[in-house]
Amino acid sequence: MAKINDNYLKLPGSYLFSTIGKKVREYEAAHPEKKVLRLGIGDVTQPLAPAVVEALHAAVDEMGDAETFRGYAPDLGYEFLRRTIAEHDFTARGCDISPDEIFVSDGAKCDCGNIQEIFSPDCRFAVCDPVYPVYVDSNVMAGRTGSYDSVAGRFDGVVYMPCTAENGFVPELPEEIPDLIYLCFPNNPTGAVITKDQLQKWVDYANEHDSVILYDAAYEAYISDPAVPHSIYECAGAKECAVEFRSFSKTAGFTGLRLGYTVIPRQLKTGGESLWPLWARRHGTKYNGAPYIVQKAGEAVYSAAGKEQIRNQIGYYKENAKIIFEGLRKAGYQVAGGENAPYIWLRTPDGLTSWEFFDRLLDEANVVGTPGSGFGPHGEHYFRLSAFGSRGNVLEAVERICRL
Amino acid sequence: MAKINDNYLKLPGSYLFSTIGKKVREYEAAHPEKKVLRLGIGDVTQPLAPAVVEALHAAVDEMGDAETFRGYAPDLGYEFLRRTIAEHDFTARGCDISPDEIFVSDGAKCDCGNIQEIFSPDCRFAVCDPVYPVYVDSNVMAGRTGSYDSVAGRFDGVVYMPCTAENGFVPELPEEIPDLIYLCFPNNPTGAVITKDQLQKWVDYANEHDSVILYDAAYEAYISDPAVPHSIYECAGAKECAVEFRSFSKTAGFTGLRLGYTVIPRQLKTGGESLWPLWARRHGTKYNGAPYIVQKAGEAVYSAAGKEQIRNQIGYYKENAKIIFEGLRKAGYQVAGGENAPYIWLRTPDGLTSWEFFDRLLDEANVVGTPGSGFGPHGEHYFRLSAFGSRGNVLEAVERICRL
Repeated sequence: MAKINDNYLKLPGSYLFSTIGKKVREYEAAHPEKKVLRLGIGDVTQPLAPAVVEALHAAVDEMGDAETFRGYAPDLGYEFLRRTIAEHDFTARGCDISPDEIFVSDGAKCDCGNIQEIFSPDCRFAVCDPVYPVYVDSNVMAGRTGSYDSVAGRFDGVVYMPCTAENGFVPELPEEIPDLIYLCFPNNPTGAVITKDQLQKWVDYANEHDSVILYDAAYEAYISDPAVPHSIYECAGAKECAVEFRSFSKTAGFTGLRLGYTVIPRQLKTGGESLWPLWARRHGTKYNGAPYIVQKAGEAVYSAAGKEQIRNQIGYYKENAKIIFEGLRKAGYQVAGGENAPYIWLRTPDGLTSWEFFDRLLDEANVVGTPGSGFGPHGEHYFRLSAFGSRGNVLEAVERICRL
Repeated sequence: MAKINDNYLKLPGSYLFSTIGKKVREYEAAHPEKKVLRLGIGDVTQPLAPAVVEALHAAVDEMGDAETFRGYAPDLGYEFLRRTIAEHDFTARGCDISPDEIFVSDGAKCDCGNIQEIFSPDCRFAVCDPVYPVYVDSNVMAGRTGSYDSVAGRFDGVVYMPCTAENGFVPELPEEIPDLIYLCFPNNPTGAVITKDQLQKWVDYANEHDSVILYDAAYEAYISDPAVPHSIYECAGAKECAVEFRSFSKTAGFTGLRLGYTVIPRQLKTGGESLWPLWARRHGTKYNGAPYIVQKAGEAVYSAAGKEQIRNQIGYYKENAKIIFEGLRKAGYQVAGGENAPYIWLRTPDGLTSWEFFDRLLDEANVVGTPGSGFGPHGEHYFRLSAFGSRGNVLEAVERICRL
C-alpha cells in the first residue's frame, strides 16, 4: 500500500498566506459593499516597467517565428541573463561571482523551498523567529523536525533564533551550533537589516563551525543605507560558506512573471563535497528552466532604461513605506522596519494577539495585513504591513488604521 | 557540520540530456563546418501558434497597465485556465474531472519529479524499463532506492518492468506489488501506446493492491488510434488510484514557455489519507504559480483558432514521425513507435551498443539521437529519434542515416 509522507501532517493548518487569502475572500463575499485594502501578502501593484514590457513583446515575437523560436532553455539559465546578473549585481559591487555560479529559476520562494533537498535529512537548521514560513515548512516536509508544539508554536528539533525589539530584530549567534542557517536581510517580516560588520560575524561563525548559510536577499533593492550589504559575498569568506537567493519579484514587480536566481559558489563545500554539482543536478532533473521570454524580461531590468524605471518603482514603494511608518508612529504605534525594506513591523495595540488585530483590522478598517504570529512565536503581538499598495490605497489604509 | 544528501552521489554521471548536450557542443566546437541535425532531446522546433502569440501580447499589455496588472497567481492556477482544461481535456472525453482537481504548473517534468515528495520514503516504486529518467532519478534523490549496480544498469530496490519488442513495449503487471507505479503512454522513449482495455487492467490492479498510478500523458495529443485512451480517467475506478500529468510542451510547442498540469482527484486516497491536500500544500509552500502571461497562452491553445493551429502543428510532427519510421524501415532498420507518438524507437544495427550508435551517428551522419540505454538496461541496443525537427532537417537526417 502506498503510504503518504506523514511529515506533511505535522504542519499545522495551511500555508499562512493561503489562510489569509481565504479569510479575505470570505469577508469580501459576506460584505461585497466594502472596499478591502490589501497590505498583507506583500504582492506588488505597480505595472511592469516599459522596458520590461518592450522586452517581453520582442521575445514573444521571436517565439512566434521559426527562425528565432527557442525551445528548452539551458539548465542554468540563458548565458545572456547570467552574465548580466554577474556583472550588475556582483562585479559592480566588488563581489567575485561568475555567471556559471548563478542558477536562474522561477523565483526565490521555490529555490528557498527546494535548497534543503541537497542536504542530509539529519541536518539541524536554524531560523530567525519570526521568519518567512517557507524555510521551516519545507524542512518539516523533508522530515528535519520533530512534531509541532502548538503551545510553544514551534517544531521540535529546530534552532529558533529570537528577533526582538531588544536585539533590533537581528539574532544573536546561536550557542547550539546549527548545520544550516537561514538568514534573510532586509528581513521579511520585520524589515530589519544587518550591517556588513554584523554579517561578517555570521560568515566567520559559519566558516568556523562548518555551517552553511542560506542567505535570502530578495529585498536587497530596498537598501539605501550604505553600511548595509546587498550581498553576503561582500563579506570575506562568504564564498566558502554561503548560498544566496535573489528575486526579481520585489525588485522589478515580477511576482506574476516569476524569476529569481540562486548563487552557489564553485568553492562552496561541506564535508568535502561541493554543493554546486548537487544543485546543478537537481536543476537538471527536477526543473526545466524559466521561460525564455521571462529571462529576456529579466535582462531588460538591467538596461539603462530598465534601471531608471525600476529605481522609480522602488522609490514609489519606499515612499509608501515611509507614509505607513510615519503615519503609524504619529498615531502612537510602536513601529520598526520600513527604511531599508518594504515591510513595516508594528506592535499590536491594546495587548491584542496578532490574529485578533488581523480580524479587527479586517472588520473595522477593511485593511488586510499579516499577523506576526504566523511567522513564529516571537512574532506574536506584532503585525506586518507591506508597502506594495498603490499610493491612494496606502494613504487610505493608514488613515483608516489611525482612526481605529 | 552540514552534511549533503548523499543519495545524490548514487546517481551515475549527469542527467542524460545534459550529457548529450555536452557531447554535441564538444563535437560542434571541434567541427564548426558540420551541420549537426538534432533528433535527440525531443525539443520542438515549430514557432508558437499565432493564437498563442496573440494571447501572449495581449497579456503582456495587461501586465504593463496598472489597471490590469496581475501579481501572484492563485496557488492552483487561474480559474480561467483550470476551467478550460477541465472542459476540453476531460469533460469532452467523458471524464469527470473538475477544475479544482487540476493543479497548473510550469511543466510535467517538474511535477513528475516532485510528486514523489508527498509519499513516504519507504514506498516501493515501479517503472518501465526503458523509462524517462526523471521518475527514477527523483526517487533516488529522495532515498527510495539502494545503490546503483553499474553492471546491471539498475538501482537496488526498484521494481523494473521490462518493455520489449516481445510485449509490444507494454509491461506486464508486476508480480512483486509496488506502492507507486509510474506509467507513461504514449511512451517516452519507445513511442508505444496502451489500449483502454490494457490500461483498465492496470487501474484494477492498482485498486486491488492499494497502489497509486502516476500516469504521464504528456504525449496524448499524438494519439490518432481511437482504441487508445487520452486520459487514464477514461478507465473506470481511475479516480480512486491515479494521478495524471499533462504537458503543453509537445502539444503546443511550450518547451520554452513552460506550462503543464497535474490532476489529483478529490477522492484519491491512500492509507485513508487524501493526496489532494498534500499536493496543494506542496504547491502553496514550494511553488509560486505559472506566470499569468503563460497561463493566458495556455488558454489560447483551446480557442477555436488555437485548436486548429495546434492540430496542424501536431500533424506536421506526425508526418515527420512517419517519414522517419518509413525511411528507416525501408533501409532495413527494425523500428517501433511513431504512429501515436512523436518518438521512433529503433534497434541499433550491427549489434552496436546504444552509445556506440550515438557516436557513429554523430560522427558519420552528424545526426543527434538519444541512446536507448540512457533510459534503462532494456533500452540497450535501442535508439530514440524524435519527430520534432523541421521537415527539411528530418528528411536530410533520414537520408544521412540511410546512407550510413
